[in-house]
Amino acid sequence: MKHLVSMKDLSELQIIELLDRAERFKKEGIHELPGNYTISNLFFEPSTRTKMSFEMAERKLGLEVLPFEAGFSSALKGESLYDTVKTLESIGLDVLVIRHPDDGYYEELINKTSCSIINGGDGSGQHPTQSLLDLFTIKEEFGTFEGIEVLIVGDIVHSRVARSNADALTRLGANVTFLCPAEWSGEFESVNDWEDYAEKSDVIMLLRVQNERHKDGESYSGESYHERYGLTLERASRMKETAIIMHPAPFNRGVEIADELIENANSRIFMQIKNGVYVRMAVLEAILKGRN
Amino acid sequence: MKHLVSMKDLSELQIIELLDRAERFKKEGIHELPGNYTISNLFFEPSTRTKMSFEMAERKLGLEVLPFEAGFSSALKGESLYDTVKTLESIGLDVLVIRHPDDGYYEELINKTSCSIINGGDGSGQHPTQSLLDLFTIKEEFGTFEGIEVLIVGDIVHSRVARSNADALTRLGANVTFLCPAEWSGEFESVNDWEDYAEKSDVIMLLRVQNERHKDGESYSGESYHERYGLTLERASRMKETAIIMHPAPFNRGVEIADELIENANSRIFMQIKNGVYVRMAVLEAILKGRN
Amino acid sequence: MKHLVSMKDLSELQIIELLDRAERFKKEGIHELPGNYTISNLFFEPSTRTKMSFEMAERKLGLEVLPFEAGFSSALKGESLYDTVKTLESIGLDVLVIRHPDDGYYEELINKTSCSIINGGDGSGQHPTQSLLDLFTIKEEFGTFEGIEVLIVGDIVHSRVARSNADALTRLGANVTFLCPAEWSGEFESVNDWEDYAEKSDVIMLLRVQNERHKDGESYSGESYHERYGLTLERASRMKETAIIMHPAPFNRGVEIADELIENANSRIFMQIKNGVYVRMAVLEAILKGRN
Repeated sequence: MKHLVSMKDLSELQIIELLDRAERFKKEGIHELPGNYTISNLFFEPSTRTKMSFEMAERKLGLEVLPFEAGFSSALKGESLYDTVKTLESIGLDVLVIRHPDDGYYEELINKTSCSIINGGDGSGQHPTQSLLDLFTIKEEFGTFEGIEVLIVGDIVHSRVARSNADALTRLGANVTFLCPAEWSGEFESVNDWEDYAEKSDVIMLLRVQNERHKDGESYSGESYHERYGLTLERASRMKETAIIMHPAPFNRGVEIADELIENANSRIFMQIKNGVYVRMAVLEAILKGRN
Repeated sequence: MKHLVSMKDLSELQIIELLDRAERFKKEGIHELPGNYTISNLFFEPSTRTKMSFEMAERKLGLEVLPFEAGFSSALKGESLYDTVKTLESIGLDVLVIRHPDDGYYEELINKTSCSIINGGDGSGQHPTQSLLDLFTIKEEFGTFEGIEVLIVGDIVHSRVARSNADALTRLGANVTFLCPAEWSGEFESVNDWEDYAEKSDVIMLLRVQNERHKDGESYSGESYHERYGLTLERASRMKETAIIMHPAPFNRGVEIADELIENANSRIFMQIKNGVYVRMAVLEAILKGRN
Repeated sequence: MKHLVSMKDLSELQIIELLDRAERFKKEGIHELPGNYTISNLFFEPSTRTKMSFEMAERKLGLEVLPFEAGFSSALKGESLYDTVKTLESIGLDVLVIRHPDDGYYEELINKTSCSIINGGDGSGQHPTQSLLDLFTIKEEFGTFEGIEVLIVGDIVHSRVARSNADALTRLGANVTFLCPAEWSGEFESVNDWEDYAEKSDVIMLLRVQNERHKDGESYSGESYHERYGLTLERASRMKETAIIMHPAPFNRGVEIADELIENANSRIFMQIKNGVYVRMAVLEAILKGRN
């Protein structure tokens, strides 16, 4: 594997291998790779979770991490992403983790640089390590994807991550249902009401409400969204004892999810963040092995 | 010791132990701790001195330091400090050094996170490692606190650091006098004129004039402040040969202190900065030992 | 060598020694220096190339690099560069790489700090490691400077780097010609037309057009500059097969140089960036040896 820019790059077998490797890292902790590899995290959008998670994963593998401050780089002088990447390639970087606001920013890069690119999120596009940590968290919980009922709640049309998650989950044997306001489902099949999904689901995966992406009149107040589509205390009380709550974070307390549920026994929200480190170690290792 | 958020957390014995340990570090230099610890410095306000001092102390102890850019984190998307800290805990950080503009920001954190919190300054509140480095510098100079005459000059009412310094110094046996404009002393006992304090004091500790914190009409021009309350060349000429000048920096040259005095033979201003590294090594070591 | 702030600090012999050492580093890669040295890169202006290149060189030498965020330091509270440097000296930094908008910022520092200063660019002034990487790239190509025909094209009057490059090249035996609009040549002798310089030159060194530095009426549209002074495809077609194209980057595609030429066989633009790492390793090593 030279790059990882989209879940579509990965076969089912590759996904399972990465999850197994991540499981091993979770048990074993630090795992210094042989060789001297240098990496930089190019985040052109603010991030705490993804950036810090990569920083941690990189250090647990013993990589040399060069700091890149997007807000203080030559991008400010109008330098293109392509020229920045070619520059970093010349300086000797092996791997670049990139988050960038443009959808598919990586298309113009992947055949033109000797650096490996890991997509840390592009616009409303792909975010493969987020997908992998979601998958890891489900597999860790249930041991399998076969027959697992996954309910994805929220803004499907603006979340390609949700869709690529759904796609991977379906490929791996899970049953996925989208729940969202009718006007947010776009071309996708969805249900528009909770009905008995609280009772039926093994996984309730909540998406962040990104009001900034909605046109006027389309968006909901936090309270009304919570009441109609959020995971309320009442809905949570009807969940199976074994079911889990997921959210990619950052979350809007009291909107997608009742405040009290964020750290409750069924929530895996902070466990997802924890698992992100191991999944990213697995991806980095696979990429670096691919460079030898 | 799990956290260090305030000088009130520390007994006299603990203070002395930390100062002794810092003295040892000053003699010995680098001191790699066994084990793999990760730490991050969360500075939500600009800082050179405190942040760089922690960065240096952490490296001298062999800790793994993960960079956190407050100005480019999810705090910008409105994420609360609590959620940021829980995220970093999940990612696996052991210790967080936090500077934050809110007084007592740590209250909501210390019983709810497995990370150790070191307060690197909160609002106009506590700044325990600054206090410790002040104490260290005095003890290094005089060998004792017993009977040392300390004059603290400046904005007492807005400086809880000054007050917690004074409190610790008094507990340790020193005699502390506050000198400031009457309208800045608040409920605290103070003198409002230099009288013969230049001659009498062993330590003259100057505070930074923070004009931004004063109401209209209360503040002084730099020149008039210097004349009435600053350490002028004339006042310095009356100091004991063995007395020392201290200032937490950054200083306003020609306001709190005459320009020519900043690097003179009695000044310990840059020595304080140097000592900060050793004191922070001692605090970090004590915290990490407490985690085992 | 304690500091490196200007090419004028270096004799011809010292230049050749640094280039030889850089060549060795290029062949050998990583080269950990004995001892524990700490360094920080103080960039008060945005930079990708120079900053990342120093970061890489420092890590290849095994130095401990402390992060400094100029945009989030006490400089924001008005702290002077002098006070910042004295603070970092007290904290224990050995070497500071500084880029600062003020011409000659280093003059007030070099005799007053025990830190070694490496000038990473000052205003429109010196940028010695850029000069050295240019020299290295020429020497690597031709094995010598003796008799090499170098054409420097662009804004000579605003580029002291170009002039100090020209000065060093001349000292080392090369023949240098400036080509620029008459109104940009200032007191310097220049030609104002390409004539047969495309055919005659061994090295065509293009400078960045910095429109922001020109007065009204003096500047050219990108297109008209390209046509009259840029390296067009037509001019490139007349170059000797063995001649090389250089540019310090970031470049304006289609202004100083035709887009298609940036990565062509004669271009050494990305090689210059690559070579920057080895040259900086050589400078850092020489500075650190000078501290023992």
